Amino acid sequence: MPYKDVAQALKALRELEETNSAYQHAMEVLYLDAVTAAPKDTGEGRGKTMAILSEVSYGHLTNPENKQLYDYLEEHCGELDEKARREVQLGKRIYEQYSRIPADEYVSYQVLINDAQSAWEKAKNTDDFELFRPYLEKIVETNRRFAHYYNPTKSPYDALLNEYERGTDTKQLDEFFSELRRCIVPLIQKISDCEPVDDSFLYRPCPIEQQRRLSDYIMEVMGIDRSHCSIAETEHPFTTNFNNKDVRITTHYYENNFASSLYSVIHEGGHALYELNADDKYNYSFVAGGVSMGIHESQSRFYENIIGRSQEFIFAIYPKLRELFPQQLEDVTPDMLFRAVNKVTPSLIRLDADELTYCMHIMVRYELEKQLIDGSLAVKDLPAAWNKLYKEYLGLDVPSDSKGCLQDSHWSGGGIGYFPSYALGGAYGAQMLDCMEKDVPGLWDKVAGGDLSAVTGWLKEHIHKYASLYEPKELFERSCGAFQPKYYIDYLTKKYTKLYNLE
Amino acid sequence: MPYKDVAQALKALRELEETNSAYQHAMEVLYLDAVTAAPKDTGEGRGKTMAILSEVSYGHLTNPENKQLYDYLEEHCGELDEKARREVQLGKRIYEQYSRIPADEYVSYQVLINDAQSAWEKAKNTDDFELFRPYLEKIVETNRRFAHYYNPTKSPYDALLNEYERGTDTKQLDEFFSELRRCIVPLIQKISDCEPVDDSFLYRPCPIEQQRRLSDYIMEVMGIDRSHCSIAETEHPFTTNFNNKDVRITTHYYENNFASSLYSVIHEGGHALYELNADDKYNYSFVAGGVSMGIHESQSRFYENIIGRSQEFIFAIYPKLRELFPQQLEDVTPDMLFRAVNKVTPSLIRLDADELTYCMHIMVRYELEKQLIDGSLAVKDLPAAWNKLYKEYLGLDVPSDSKGCLQDSHWSGGGIGYFPSYALGGAYGAQMLDCMEKDVPGLWDKVAGGDLSAVTGWLKEHIHKYASLYEPKELFERSCGAFQPKYYIDYLTKKYTKLYNLE
Repeated sequence: MPYKDVAQALKALRELEETNSAYQHAMEVLYLDAVTAAPKDTGEGRGKTMAILSEVSYGHLTNPENKQLYDYLEEHCGELDEKARREVQLGKRIYEQYSRIPADEYVSYQVLINDAQSAWEKAKNTDDFELFRPYLEKIVETNRRFAHYYNPTKSPYDALLNEYERGTDTKQLDEFFSELRRCIVPLIQKISDCEPVDDSFLYRPCPIEQQRRLSDYIMEVMGIDRSHCSIAETEHPFTTNFNNKDVRITTHYYENNFASSLYSVIHEGGHALYELNADDKYNYSFVAGGVSMGIHESQSRFYENIIGRSQEFIFAIYPKLRELFPQQLEDVTPDMLFRAVNKVTPSLIRLDADELTYCMHIMVRYELEKQLIDGSLAVKDLPAAWNKLYKEYLGLDVPSDSKGCLQDSHWSGGGIGYFPSYALGGAYGAQMLDCMEKDVPGLWDKVAGGDLSAVTGWLKEHIHKYASLYEPKELFERSCGAFQPKYYIDYLTKKYTKLYNLE
Repeated sequence: MPYKDVAQALKALRELEETNSAYQHAMEVLYLDAVTAAPKDTGEGRGKTMAILSEVSYGHLTNPENKQLYDYLEEHCGELDEKARREVQLGKRIYEQYSRIPADEYVSYQVLINDAQSAWEKAKNTDDFELFRPYLEKIVETNRRFAHYYNPTKSPYDALLNEYERGTDTKQLDEFFSELRRCIVPLIQKISDCEPVDDSFLYRPCPIEQQRRLSDYIMEVMGIDRSHCSIAETEHPFTTNFNNKDVRITTHYYENNFASSLYSVIHEGGHALYELNADDKYNYSFVAGGVSMGIHESQSRFYENIIGRSQEFIFAIYPKLRELFPQQLEDVTPDMLFRAVNKVTPSLIRLDADELTYCMHIMVRYELEKQLIDGSLAVKDLPAAWNKLYKEYLGLDVPSDSKGCLQDSHWSGGGIGYFPSYALGGAYGAQMLDCMEKDVPGLWDKVAGGDLSAVTGWLKEHIHKYASLYEPKELFERSCGAFQPKYYIDYLTKKYTKLYNLE
């Protein structure tokens, strides 16, 4: 028996987890630096460092001695508390999954992802899909192979989906998306017959320095502790966290579109609150951090759309917006602003999409990912397939790959199977809202007063504080019962019917 | 015999060096993030990560197998080229030195340094030396102990000096500083009898956004390739580099002191050029990067003082300064500006000191470091000793420890023995100038035309490109002959005699 007792084995487990955290921290800070601060031609050296660190980290997680450790602790699981049992479960899962990936394949993939990122950027900037094609081909091929390593019993795409949202599969998503389409398509149709909403004032030039102040204000309204969460600027906003006391959000400012950064800050702020509100005790362990992409997106999209695009919130922040952009909003009433940020228009770019058509963008990607992975669509045919679906789902002609299949960074980063999380997150959020409204009397009055503490309090209590203690399904069901798309459909129907006077 | 042939051993050496580079890169980017971007209360998690990475890195460098590798390669040194011989020499030196430090002492020291940094900041901000005292006591005590590990045959302070400038010792520095004092003290005395120079316009408020543009301009004039070198903002400016294609300078903007950031950018730009101009072949090896603090400071101070405070350079950049600060410099002629940035006044803060009195600040620190390490001065008595020397050397009463012994970050970072490098660097630079003027006809005419390519070209050819291939002494002597303080003394005497019409 390699361990004297459970205490000794737990000590070994914690050391393993803390070392793993350190490598993750280092690699994430290298990434953060790369996209927020680094000079542009510095990828080579960073690639070398990342390759070495990821190889060491991989070797550390797949050290054969870990198996003994996990087996020993599993045998003694009766002596473990809930957190320790989950640490063992997650650690073992990582061990088994990574052990199935040969070390050289793992490392080559890290290098590929690093190179693909630059190639994609270049391809997007020059509207030249061919520059990115060979990288995407390798990424698709590797993901298909890795899917088998992750879970040889599932279909490859289901195995990939499971990486981002454990418990989800194509069957569930096909149903979910088809229900959603049944609701959204007629709504979009009806709205297209309405008088167009004027949102032209959203595109008036606003000095970036003032937009930065708006970000500070929004983070304050959201109750984000700035001594533990900073904001940086990057091309494609994201959130990263090193532990629950060190979270970073990023945004991008466009002089002629203050709402873009406003909503990216609210969105990323939602991710940040999930991480900041996790219980301290999970730090530096496998249980640290949000449990899945779907739950994460439920938090970011809850703040962005359900709160951030609500009449109550818009009316609450309107005075500050007027103060920061006095000329730009001189002739804009709170109601005009509310309608403008909720304007429904089929558009080409996912990140600019309104809450309603957004799901159609996800469905396009979901369909294409499925086909890329099952081999029925070749990467070289992706642009044409993309354009065909945008015509079919959103009625739009795609003028260029930059505004088409090159628009998102996910695939270049290896994230195949990630997109559905956004739609699931939206739907989770709507069901959470239903519970929250029942639990918190006067919820919307508080929001109207600019006070989000009840919203965040509920989310912290039911979601945030648990970090990765429960599987996403269990976490969700503990507070909201079984997942049902009807909450999302009801939410969208009610919101847009009212907004556009559709009845 | 553990290695098949020299090629195989060299491959093992290169792997060791590349892994070491990756850890250094990660730790340096963590530090850079900490002081330029991180939220303020995030030290705990970073401290954990740094402790783990430095322990792993230490273990990697002191792996007993390395000894076999170095011994084997030393035995076959006839088959190695110059670079490989130096890699072996430097690697073995690190191995031997670190191996003498017990692992637990090494790691505790990293933790101490991390904690001391925050304690020092707090102490400085609240003017409370007592907050920092216990940390400094431990730092002094550890440095004394480490000095013995570094080199048991030298006196402890000489061993520490050797870490920053190999080949230097107290004997040489005592002579150097005493010669310097003999020259500087009467110069300062004579200048104090002159009509005071008006530099009040340097303290007119200048918008920080404009100062940022000035930094961009200065980096352009210096020929710094921005695709490989960025600028960030921090409290205490410094330069760091991950390889010769990824260098970062930092600065600090004060609204009421544009010259502070102007000269910090020129200074850090000098460090950056040294790293950027190193030959590619040294990247990721022990030979990468500048060879010593003294040589590094010779480069930064060459650009800052010899070039940056020359009449030719000031006249060359004056039009841009007028363009950026039209109101602030409306009544300021190029000559007034030249005199103002060279104004000699004994002052309390090293970083604000003029080129002439600067050395006196270094001498204070040198004397105190010697005493702290040899035990003749207790840390608790440091403030009084500091204040006494400032009175004696600069004729000033120190009003608070914040403006006294707490002003610099070096000691809190463990850097005892570092300060003399600044003065040595100044003196190296003056001797380099003498050679450069002989080698480059019309040097100053080029500078007057805003063209620094001849200056940088000479430095690249004689210093920069070699990275750490030669010991500092050899590097210097190859291009400038034996080091002689008289060049520095002549330079200072000539410059200030002319500037203040002392004859």
